[in-house]
Amino acid sequence: MTYDDIIAARGRLAGQAVMTPMLNAAQIDAIAGRRVLVKAECLQRTGSFKFRGAWNRVSALSDEERRRGVVASSSGNHAQGVALSCQLLGVSAVIVMPADAPKAKVNATRAYGAEVRFYDRATEDRDAVCMALAQERDAVVVPPFDDPYVIAGQGTCGLEIAAQARELGVEQGTMLTCCGGGGLSSGIALALERDAPGLTVRPVEPEGFDDFVRSLVAGERLACAAGGMSVQDAILTSMPGQLTFPIGQRLFGSGLVVSDDEALRAVGLAWQWLKIVLEPGGAAALAAALFRGAALDAGPVIVTASGGNVDPPMFARAMATL
Amino acid sequence: MTYDDIIAARGRLAGQAVMTPMLNAAQIDAIAGRRVLVKAECLQRTGSFKFRGAWNRVSALSDEERRRGVVASSSGNHAQGVALSCQLLGVSAVIVMPADAPKAKVNATRAYGAEVRFYDRATEDRDAVCMALAQERDAVVVPPFDDPYVIAGQGTCGLEIAAQARELGVEQGTMLTCCGGGGLSSGIALALERDAPGLTVRPVEPEGFDDFVRSLVAGERLACAAGGMSVQDAILTSMPGQLTFPIGQRLFGSGLVVSDDEALRAVGLAWQWLKIVLEPGGAAALAAALFRGAALDAGPVIVTASGGNVDPPMFARAMATL
Repeated sequence: MTYDDIIAARGRLAGQAVMTPMLNAAQIDAIAGRRVLVKAECLQRTGSFKFRGAWNRVSALSDEERRRGVVASSSGNHAQGVALSCQLLGVSAVIVMPADAPKAKVNATRAYGAEVRFYDRATEDRDAVCMALAQERDAVVVPPFDDPYVIAGQGTCGLEIAAQARELGVEQGTMLTCCGGGGLSSGIALALERDAPGLTVRPVEPEGFDDFVRSLVAGERLACAAGGMSVQDAILTSMPGQLTFPIGQRLFGSGLVVSDDEALRAVGLAWQWLKIVLEPGGAAALAAALFRGAALDAGPVIVTASGGNVDPPMFARAMATL
Repeated sequence: MTYDDIIAARGRLAGQAVMTPMLNAAQIDAIAGRRVLVKAECLQRTGSFKFRGAWNRVSALSDEERRRGVVASSSGNHAQGVALSCQLLGVSAVIVMPADAPKAKVNATRAYGAEVRFYDRATEDRDAVCMALAQERDAVVVPPFDDPYVIAGQGTCGLEIAAQARELGVEQGTMLTCCGGGGLSSGIALALERDAPGLTVRPVEPEGFDDFVRSLVAGERLACAAGGMSVQDAILTSMPGQLTFPIGQRLFGSGLVVSDDEALRAVGLAWQWLKIVLEPGGAAALAAALFRGAALDAGPVIVTASGGNVDPPMFARAMATL
């Protein structure tokens, strides 16, 4: 996993991924009490950054691997990224999704031509379900975050952030990332290490799912307590990745947590002032910028607005916070 | 009004305007039955393309004119564009707005530091109110569309469209524009005439406010019948402009109309698949692509998604169409 892998990923993604804009609004800055730049990855194909890593992995498969097909597990954003990548490349895909995943995510995954296999988040282990299915079908697993191609693909977002931030005059500051397993966070950190060394990545997790935050403090990979619930479904992972954690240890600043209420308020404010549609888990970093400013160093903040795949009732809850 | 004016405007807007993305989604294409590219100007500063023309006009004022201050009339998007431009340039601004303008637009205009003066759409003429105010205060009027600087500023959107469409392999097709007084439509047409001559601009208006559509057929500027109502508040103008109409006569294909219901459904689908927030009037062109395909030539369509300044209750109406 090096910077060069990210450059190679950028080559594979050329003409496929959207160059998403870096947005800002005076009203957001006023609430945060500082300059806030928002990398709008909800505008990426399939509605989240996940298309980057999925395309980078699937497009790099050999002809023999493509014939065998792909299996992936995901609460819904990686699912769509893999499903669309496979559809565009003519590869069959089965996606393992939690039975309580947002309907929008399930429907979109199917619309991209993938088969969906449900599992119970309370009683089944998604990785085990995924592995069993891959063995049964002799298919290739595309992991949601702990894979060099996936991390490198997400890292292309970091290349864009570095260039866009420089253009806006921001070379020193804090880079807040919505963090589940750490694929996006570690990919961005690897890109910024070379292209924008004055920006420090700090991962943001939901309260109760702060495994990465606590693991960074402990210096070892810690798991979340089981049984937690959060509306930030996109970033509910139980433990940092084996590949992503060492990158985080080397490059991340300390992590932050946000509540579901804060994430929903950030969704509402992003609707109001940035004109983008976010899901709660895709608004975690923005929520930290808006409501956890006391935990940040002075200076500008860049946030990932990672995804926008949300059901109407949840979005209505966010709008009601305005 | 020439192409060179648009190039000059691009120079003034460099570093100020957002380079908005060209979005697309397989689900949108499936409904439209053709490829649809969406120029997401709702992501422009102040939530609509209007910032482009306003900045181009206000930043080109002389020092003496800047000291006198600015007056503008607008249902809300031009209002915000002028207000922010004036705030950034240290110019005082008074905005004449209809008393029934969306609250979001009124509040945002005030937040950008402008003074708001209301008028009654049923009983007062907004241009007359605006002119009287300008005389009283010896201020400079920044017209919403019928001004060479404003048209040239909106035309910068067309320069981006031409380049982005070419990058996506679209050089022949239909360019649908949300059309009120025709500032955006004529500016884009002037840009495309040089940069993408295979794209034909066709203006889209709300049912009952199809003055530009009917004027193109008649070969003269016709007014709308008074007393109409539409939720597409951003594009409710009574007559084509003196400057915009001749440009339209020379360069536009025939116009289209969409119903409020179609516009609201387009707002919902843009939320669902493109992850952008549109107001009904900013979704008129997308609505035509989605629901009026029988009136279009075969081939790809590009649409302007012109603005996203909408109140939550109206947005909830759009979501309810999903």
